[in-house]
Amino acid sequence: MMKPFLDQNFLLHTTAAQRLYHEFAAPMPIIDYHNHLLPQQIAEDHRFDNLTQVWLYGDHYKWRAMRTQGISEMYCTGDASDWEKFEKWAETVPYILRNSLYHWTHLELRRYFGITELLSPATAQSIYDRASALLRTPEYSVRNLLRKMNVRVLCTTDDPTDSLEWHQKMASDPSMDFKVLPAFRPDKAMAVEDPATFNVWVDNLASVAGIHIDDYAGFMAALTKRHDFFAQNGCRMSDHGLEEIYCEPYTEQEIKDIFKKIRSGQTLNTTEVLKIKSALLFEFALLDHQKGWVQQYHLGALRNNNSRAMRQLGPDTGWDSIGDFQQGRALARFLDRLDSENRLTKTILYNLNPADNELMATMIGNFNDGSVAGKVQFGSAWWFLDQKDGMEKQLNALSNMGLVSRFVGMLTDSRSFLSYPRHEYFRRTLCNLFGQEIEKGELPNEVEWIGEIVRDISYRNAAGYFGFEHD
Amino acid sequence: MMKPFLDQNFLLHTTAAQRLYHEFAAPMPIIDYHNHLLPQQIAEDHRFDNLTQVWLYGDHYKWRAMRTQGISEMYCTGDASDWEKFEKWAETVPYILRNSLYHWTHLELRRYFGITELLSPATAQSIYDRASALLRTPEYSVRNLLRKMNVRVLCTTDDPTDSLEWHQKMASDPSMDFKVLPAFRPDKAMAVEDPATFNVWVDNLASVAGIHIDDYAGFMAALTKRHDFFAQNGCRMSDHGLEEIYCEPYTEQEIKDIFKKIRSGQTLNTTEVLKIKSALLFEFALLDHQKGWVQQYHLGALRNNNSRAMRQLGPDTGWDSIGDFQQGRALARFLDRLDSENRLTKTILYNLNPADNELMATMIGNFNDGSVAGKVQFGSAWWFLDQKDGMEKQLNALSNMGLVSRFVGMLTDSRSFLSYPRHEYFRRTLCNLFGQEIEKGELPNEVEWIGEIVRDISYRNAAGYFGFEHD
Amino acid sequence: MMKPFLDQNFLLHTTAAQRLYHEFAAPMPIIDYHNHLLPQQIAEDHRFDNLTQVWLYGDHYKWRAMRTQGISEMYCTGDASDWEKFEKWAETVPYILRNSLYHWTHLELRRYFGITELLSPATAQSIYDRASALLRTPEYSVRNLLRKMNVRVLCTTDDPTDSLEWHQKMASDPSMDFKVLPAFRPDKAMAVEDPATFNVWVDNLASVAGIHIDDYAGFMAALTKRHDFFAQNGCRMSDHGLEEIYCEPYTEQEIKDIFKKIRSGQTLNTTEVLKIKSALLFEFALLDHQKGWVQQYHLGALRNNNSRAMRQLGPDTGWDSIGDFQQGRALARFLDRLDSENRLTKTILYNLNPADNELMATMIGNFNDGSVAGKVQFGSAWWFLDQKDGMEKQLNALSNMGLVSRFVGMLTDSRSFLSYPRHEYFRRTLCNLFGQEIEKGELPNEVEWIGEIVRDISYRNAAGYFGFEHD
Repeated sequence: MMKPFLDQNFLLHTTAAQRLYHEFAAPMPIIDYHNHLLPQQIAEDHRFDNLTQVWLYGDHYKWRAMRTQGISEMYCTGDASDWEKFEKWAETVPYILRNSLYHWTHLELRRYFGITELLSPATAQSIYDRASALLRTPEYSVRNLLRKMNVRVLCTTDDPTDSLEWHQKMASDPSMDFKVLPAFRPDKAMAVEDPATFNVWVDNLASVAGIHIDDYAGFMAALTKRHDFFAQNGCRMSDHGLEEIYCEPYTEQEIKDIFKKIRSGQTLNTTEVLKIKSALLFEFALLDHQKGWVQQYHLGALRNNNSRAMRQLGPDTGWDSIGDFQQGRALARFLDRLDSENRLTKTILYNLNPADNELMATMIGNFNDGSVAGKVQFGSAWWFLDQKDGMEKQLNALSNMGLVSRFVGMLTDSRSFLSYPRHEYFRRTLCNLFGQEIEKGELPNEVEWIGEIVRDISYRNAAGYFGFEHD
Repeated sequence: MMKPFLDQNFLLHTTAAQRLYHEFAAPMPIIDYHNHLLPQQIAEDHRFDNLTQVWLYGDHYKWRAMRTQGISEMYCTGDASDWEKFEKWAETVPYILRNSLYHWTHLELRRYFGITELLSPATAQSIYDRASALLRTPEYSVRNLLRKMNVRVLCTTDDPTDSLEWHQKMASDPSMDFKVLPAFRPDKAMAVEDPATFNVWVDNLASVAGIHIDDYAGFMAALTKRHDFFAQNGCRMSDHGLEEIYCEPYTEQEIKDIFKKIRSGQTLNTTEVLKIKSALLFEFALLDHQKGWVQQYHLGALRNNNSRAMRQLGPDTGWDSIGDFQQGRALARFLDRLDSENRLTKTILYNLNPADNELMATMIGNFNDGSVAGKVQFGSAWWFLDQKDGMEKQLNALSNMGLVSRFVGMLTDSRSFLSYPRHEYFRRTLCNLFGQEIEKGELPNEVEWIGEIVRDISYRNAAGYFGFEHD
Repeated sequence: MMKPFLDQNFLLHTTAAQRLYHEFAAPMPIIDYHNHLLPQQIAEDHRFDNLTQVWLYGDHYKWRAMRTQGISEMYCTGDASDWEKFEKWAETVPYILRNSLYHWTHLELRRYFGITELLSPATAQSIYDRASALLRTPEYSVRNLLRKMNVRVLCTTDDPTDSLEWHQKMASDPSMDFKVLPAFRPDKAMAVEDPATFNVWVDNLASVAGIHIDDYAGFMAALTKRHDFFAQNGCRMSDHGLEEIYCEPYTEQEIKDIFKKIRSGQTLNTTEVLKIKSALLFEFALLDHQKGWVQQYHLGALRNNNSRAMRQLGPDTGWDSIGDFQQGRALARFLDRLDSENRLTKTILYNLNPADNELMATMIGNFNDGSVAGKVQFGSAWWFLDQKDGMEKQLNALSNMGLVSRFVGMLTDSRSFLSYPRHEYFRRTLCNLFGQEIEKGELPNEVEWIGEIVRDISYRNAAGYFGFEHD
């Protein structure tokens, strides 16, 4: 009656769901088409020394939970020892019930280390010792961690100035039996709010591209050269982290002048910021279209809200939240501007505020014109929404207002090599939704057919969409 | 254990729900108080030649699904034959699982044609042939299709310049055993963004009304005359399709000047557009109040987002989506302006963004003053939301924040004569919500009483609200 | 199979939920840390003459339901007799199914009066007579009503000019076996839109504080003195009712000038209103931080929407609704301004629009810095959201995006002495969520541990957070 925690039918509440998952979803390999793993660590087949290093370093989700629990920064990002940090995390875990971290934590201990105890102060030492010992064996190198999860392709997130040296090494490494590809993420090219930082970056871009940048044309030439370079290194997609889409009217002359102004070190006013961001976003979209890449937009985060923490710890350390930006009109205008010139490439919209799920799920329909199945996608539940409730809301909105059967599915978006059970989590959630409706007579009892759709969403749609079928 | 798909207890997951539906909801006739059917087809008792004509012509929901599936425009709105179009729709259907189109499709095949197979490439030819053959028989004329669904009253949506000739014919046709009434939808009177199109429409209005329109007073005189004419022809309601309610301050002189400006062919600026829309919206509300009509506002659509498609196919062809407009303050101000002068007539607010459901469900309470039960209504889940999940959200918000017992219930809003099973779908969903709570002890087991409320929401509330009791 | 209505396992749909509620939640006392009870009535241990007085006087939730039902104002706030008002309410009750008023109504009749019949016209007289007879006995004095519910601490809501005489009487009353504390709610200090009303209030403040107010410094001195006075009388928290957080840039000189302007009776423009509200809100937050108080922000109501009713009945009579304000950026800026100076005190954010739940649940994480467990809180579902569905949404958002285990839990926010079963309602809902996940294997079957968390959320977290442990 009472189901054991995290058993083989975890999240699968009907027999139809269980069949869909075990027969169809589970055997499919993984394409993790967006994450923040470090290519160097894969290229060098890095091994971690202990569980803290692979699990707590860089994981701002866990830090946020610990801080809310009243644990001092010393044990999150500070000087405490790896063991002390782990101990504090273990103290926190019994208090994170109902947060997806509770599920991730225990799923990851099981899937990678075969550890089935609940993490708590009582079990902390033993779990730390056992997992750390395994991590130091060759079977737990990062490549083997990825192989254990049946990862076939993964795409990192890279700055246009990146040399891609590690990607190149992997490309020519015969022992690599899965693909690691870069993604072009030019956020710093659009970070025009702070002229000093921007100009340092532009200077670096000029040097990497070997192009002198003294005007907007030079800037775009250098960016285009890097875009080409990424393409030569197997890149098939761009990515943008934005509060909202920018689509203000501008003239070419205005953009030239604005670029000159910022290059001279002057601060732009709000209108100028919007205009040049609008121009750049459009130009990047044209480059993506020329190469047939997929362009991805991560929309809606309100970042770096705690300036004290920003000064002390920098970005991406757990001080971001969900914003409430008006997304509809500019997004429609931007996509339409591209579409009306027949230059809209395949596009994925990721949404951070669930209040906008239905907007996004219907927005994609405006530009799905029959040319490519699922051309414009409503991306998987992202960041704070990357949990069962968030996934179900995204899947339901997409199902109700579009075709979930054409969905390219899950990605980890993670900085951790232990995050791959999130694909399993997603697939279980997906199968549960289908299974539930079969059981209730709201879908026909066609498990074979629905199983094919589950396979598509788990793997085959992404393989086709990004062109990884033959990888 | 596993329930068959679409059986007699479809969507009814408790015995209480089943009793509520079969005993109370199902026998009630239908008042479809808002749709987009063509009055001419009813007046002429049109017969369709095949299933494509009645089902796929004009159905932009299906076209959107087909386009997302990667099917070319030729098979949606283009030159392909009726059979080819149907074939492509049949190919698409197995991919629309979890979208309400999947339910509508099979429910309509069952209810109108007795066809219980699932539509797919394998069954396409047989289903097409059988349904088309039936459509060509007198029993499947449009009036008989409506009679089959027990439709007692239906209200179309009509431009103020419409001659209402078909409504007049029906009014004097003794063989009409149900009512078809017009609704006054003056969207074109407010479409001031494009002076050229607007002025053509105003000229036509002048000619139809027999009033020379050279100033705002003339414009309002002509509109008032048409409003009177609609009333003489049985109209009891107006309807407006708006992104948001306009309630900007203005003076009479400003409106006169703005009207003159647009009549001279000049383009209005944003402020002028808002002012004249605010004025017109208010004037229409006064006319509706004078006649005791119900006024309806369809809020929140972001329309015609794909300009390439707009140029090729025109509006209402599937390129619209849900917007994120700020609705609260202007809506409150507009309703208050009318209420404070005791000129607020019965009003229905339809909301397209589910993020605004709770806003709408509480907004109506601000103007429900005890004068008429349920005077201001939160309208049924609309367009993209017209599916089980959307209906449940609307019903739950309304229940939690108002009185669902006073709800005027469902309408099809459809362009198709085969959409009437949506009333059944709504009633099943409604009964399921009540039944579930009875079963869980969250409502008392008073099926007789709750059945009366179900009857009210299914039919009697609308009959009383619109004054159709004696029709 | 079919569960009886409102039985002992009401809302508890699994055995785990039943154990959690009956063993852990139910026995905990109540801290009602925010409500609108009248301190005088508690100090005088008031007795009500009949059920209408304690139940319908001042309850704008019930009035709204009655008005929607078509009942005239005479029976809500008007001249009808107490019995007639009750009769109309009893007529309405059978129509409020699925609204939480239906649950509150019958829960309150059971818990206070042992009345288990459903309220309806048939039972109205008998219920009225029995309950009113009980209310006139000493066992039903307001203190005994509170004792019956095991209330240990309650905090009222008080204007800075309040003499707190009744709080003082209770503090020195040896028969008081629970605590009644004031809360500092300076809304009128920020109501600068109407200079006339504002200046009357400021004059009163000057007189109560014994400080001459002819400039902004004097204003703040008087407010500070009242803040001190509240602290001396046991106050530990402030509260603000706001559409949204104000955080506009301003200079001290600007604020001085704006204050002078309003004191001279002139109306402020929009910018001035925003600036002085921003300044005041910040100053209040500094005072709260100095004293280590908890500051509470009730955000998102669109108030007094019906100006006809406002003129006739005044505020808080049932004409308010949920607004759609942009909350994110200003809220982040305001909290950051305080945090970056290390002057952010413990803070609770209450949200009225469920579309913003996820924004709020993540916003608090931006300022939970490890210094205090659960320092910044996402407050309990409020006003229109204070029902099962609203509570579940708040609890789920908080669980998914933060630590529900650190939540300070429920408050009534009520004007009625009969509202305390809402704590029971909240606890049942909470236990049901945990129990459901245990039953499904989504939480481990650790009822003892989860029971501790339930105790924390029901009582102990609030006791620690507000410093009531030793009260």
